[in-house]
Amino acid sequence: VRILITGGAGMIGRKLAERLARDGSLGGSPLEHVLLVDVVAPERPAAEPPFEARAGDLAVAGVAPELTAGRPDVIIHLAAVLSAEAEDDLEKGYRVNLDGTRLLFEAVRTQGGGYRPRVVFASSIAVFGVPFPEVIGDDVVPAPLTSYGTQKAIGELLLADYTRRGFLDGVGIRLPTISVRPGPPNRAASSFFSSIVREPLHGREAVLPVSDDVRHWHASPRAAVAFLLHAATMDTDPLGHRRSLTMPGVSVTVAEQIETLRAIAGDGAVALIRREPDESVRRIVATWPRAFDPQRALALGFRAERSFDEIIRVYVEDELGGRVPPVAA
Amino acid sequence: VRILITGGAGMIGRKLAERLARDGSLGGSPLEHVLLVDVVAPERPAAEPPFEARAGDLAVAGVAPELTAGRPDVIIHLAAVLSAEAEDDLEKGYRVNLDGTRLLFEAVRTQGGGYRPRVVFASSIAVFGVPFPEVIGDDVVPAPLTSYGTQKAIGELLLADYTRRGFLDGVGIRLPTISVRPGPPNRAASSFFSSIVREPLHGREAVLPVSDDVRHWHASPRAAVAFLLHAATMDTDPLGHRRSLTMPGVSVTVAEQIETLRAIAGDGAVALIRREPDESVRRIVATWPRAFDPQRALALGFRAERSFDEIIRVYVEDELGGRVPPVAA
Repeated sequence: VRILITGGAGMIGRKLAERLARDGSLGGSPLEHVLLVDVVAPERPAAEPPFEARAGDLAVAGVAPELTAGRPDVIIHLAAVLSAEAEDDLEKGYRVNLDGTRLLFEAVRTQGGGYRPRVVFASSIAVFGVPFPEVIGDDVVPAPLTSYGTQKAIGELLLADYTRRGFLDGVGIRLPTISVRPGPPNRAASSFFSSIVREPLHGREAVLPVSDDVRHWHASPRAAVAFLLHAATMDTDPLGHRRSLTMPGVSVTVAEQIETLRAIAGDGAVALIRREPDESVRRIVATWPRAFDPQRALALGFRAERSFDEIIRVYVEDELGGRVPPVAA
Repeated sequence: VRILITGGAGMIGRKLAERLARDGSLGGSPLEHVLLVDVVAPERPAAEPPFEARAGDLAVAGVAPELTAGRPDVIIHLAAVLSAEAEDDLEKGYRVNLDGTRLLFEAVRTQGGGYRPRVVFASSIAVFGVPFPEVIGDDVVPAPLTSYGTQKAIGELLLADYTRRGFLDGVGIRLPTISVRPGPPNRAASSFFSSIVREPLHGREAVLPVSDDVRHWHASPRAAVAFLLHAATMDTDPLGHRRSLTMPGVSVTVAEQIETLRAIAGDGAVALIRREPDESVRRIVATWPRAFDPQRALALGFRAERSFDEIIRVYVEDELGGRVPPVAA
């Protein structure tokens, strides 16, 4: 199987490539070629033979046709400017998140010759904005209140139209906030949801910009990779014309996140969380969903963790070699 | 008040201009300047002084900034490639309906200096696609099944985001199918809904490409103009972040349309309707909504006709000088 992964230098892209390298196959087919692309050339995972890495900006004319010239069977489109940056820089957000996505789909369409790859589009729960019910079912209207969410909702519409017209076989997956993210904080407004767990686990201070009663929807990086692989290999007939699905996750408050951290890593870890309210982060997060009832995705076989305890343990296993380090009190 | 009308050469644009010329004002403010734009220069209504007509393609870079350079207080954006054409010519549909709309909003945004016009965006009930409830309420998910509907849904998302960010004060109105349209059939797949009434009233044969039990949602051209004027002048505070509204209309079957025509114009008129099933029209129309419960729009003061009889009588008044002509049997 031939695979193209955009946004390959991002955290999810990297973990997806590592998982593919470990498996050596996708849906039972051995990997022939895996092309990782990002604005800076992504690192390739250890098992190099089928892996290729390239630098390229999808929003620049001519780049997407070049990347799809090898007619990959599966395209996993992760490349995006994240929420805080898309809010700060309107032009960059629309250029990367809207134009980049559209040019990728156009490159697929204009190949012709019956080419119709599976395209997995990483959407986001940010397509939903207040007012919405406390628990959001599959029939709630996407009404984003950020430019990032707007761009993802537009991507979903394009994916559905290009699928309906037979140019590609699209699956949009609305990712929960990914917790616990490894590495340094990123430019997503949701970054603190991970920092308040990750930094204390490493004995470092973390900043909490919102109040403890903020409730949100989480899944681990490992679950996100599993969503992408399932979307890349699932039978898409049951989707009908509705090609985008809200992914399962865990609904917890910041207070519950902190108490789970305490149970796993102790009071010393929790003491490293410093409260520093940030009005701009608070305003963005206030428009975000808190909990979902993702029946369609569950019925189609998508699975996430069932508790925040499981989510922290995934981090400890995948990033800390399975051991909770002693934290300086 | 200064007004820019795109799509000014279309049927609705022309009727809107005529109405403005008759009123001499909008929302109590005298007309200072009304700029009508279309790909071919629109005709100006009789009362010429404040009216100007120009040819221009919004999807061409540089055109939208020129059209908005006079900082119109109100922009009524009607320009669009219609449903059948957008389905036949994917590139043209996306270029005009998506790029044209985006470039117009961008032109407004980049003016800066606190410029924030009222922008009325003509959306469509084609943003909804099956499966949907028999009567579509205001909380049903837009899930278009045509490229035209997709492009209108994307326009609604852009309108909401640009409004939220303070660049414009947007109102999207989802127009019903406009019946009875004067003039020759157009390239909308819905064109027959008007032809089967209009052509017999003029003693000409009409073609009916779908079955008699097809139910659809109608309002007159006069009602459409009234929607636009209300959207241009209403208080937008009650809209909150949800800037697009489904307009009221009349839900009737083709059979009911025909019986209403019979009551007004007699058996001779009905005999001029020739049944000629067209699979491509049937397929498009099968994905269209049949009835709505447009509570938000009604609460905000939008009004349409209450029966198809009223709709035909509007045509007779506005296009036939109030008299039903004798029809050759």
